[in-house]
Amino acid sequence: MNALTPLGMVSDFPSENQTNEHLLGEAAEDQKDYFVERDGMKFAGMHLLVDLWGASNLGDPAHIDAALCEAAITAGATILHSHFHHFSPNGGVSGVVVLAESHISIHTWPERNFAAVDIFMCGACDPHLAIPVLRRAFLPERVQLDEQRRGRVY
Amino acid sequence: MNALTPLGMVSDFPSENQTNEHLLGEAAEDQKDYFVERDGMKFAGMHLLVDLWGASNLGDPAHIDAALCEAAITAGATILHSHFHHFSPNGGVSGVVVLAESHISIHTWPERNFAAVDIFMCGACDPHLAIPVLRRAFLPERVQLDEQRRGRVY
Repeated sequence: MNALTPLGMVSDFPSENQTNEHLLGEAAEDQKDYFVERDGMKFAGMHLLVDLWGASNLGDPAHIDAALCEAAITAGATILHSHFHHFSPNGGVSGVVVLAESHISIHTWPERNFAAVDIFMCGACDPHLAIPVLRRAFLPERVQLDEQRRGRVY
Repeated sequence: MNALTPLGMVSDFPSENQTNEHLLGEAAEDQKDYFVERDGMKFAGMHLLVDLWGASNLGDPAHIDAALCEAAITAGATILHSHFHHFSPNGGVSGVVVLAESHISIHTWPERNFAAVDIFMCGACDPHLAIPVLRRAFLPERVQLDEQRRGRVY
């Protein structure tokens, strides 16, 4: 996990914040620290749980795939893999975008106009930037947002 | 999304709790309700955020894949797809198992002996049953657990 990956790039060798960046090999690798330091806190990553109510376009896997990929890129993340599953022609969609900086997932209940999204991002990404993309894509009447700082050290 | 899928099976046509189960075709499909009713609450699914501290085996994608698949099956879920990414030979692993009943994800920071897991399950699954499997696989000294009921109606 690379908390220091620059926006939109993948790197296994971040140049900032390493205790022994001048060393090479396993000794340096073992001493890397990818946790984030922000707002006086040190933690692994930010995890947003986003419930969309009164939402539209929840039964279209291609639309959902495009929306989540746009959300990831807008937040400054790098997409490694995505997978979406459509349960039936009129049914819900489950899917995930695996990122260099963690993941975005979605599960939709079109019959309830409800979708549960979670956005987990470490590094320099800002998962809050993904929310306006979700609003445009799914036109929810109401958005319920919960923010968790995962792996908080202090 | 099929909240009524029996343990270990996928079905787009659950037989319980449908308002018009005797009807066929799109009219009935549109009226299905896959939300769960439990403990006097109605909601979309249960979402556990599980932080593992002082954990082991966090840099081995094959071990992590096997552990998460075992955790999913133990919780009564059906695996649709899994994908794991290893960031470097000594680095962390990011991965997800997409389920008929939502997903399990993991992101590991071996240099901190830390892993962030989330387990989202709807239907008859019990995500709490996945926790002992994670304990056996990653031997954490400490487990921090947060439970969210996503899409709660009442």
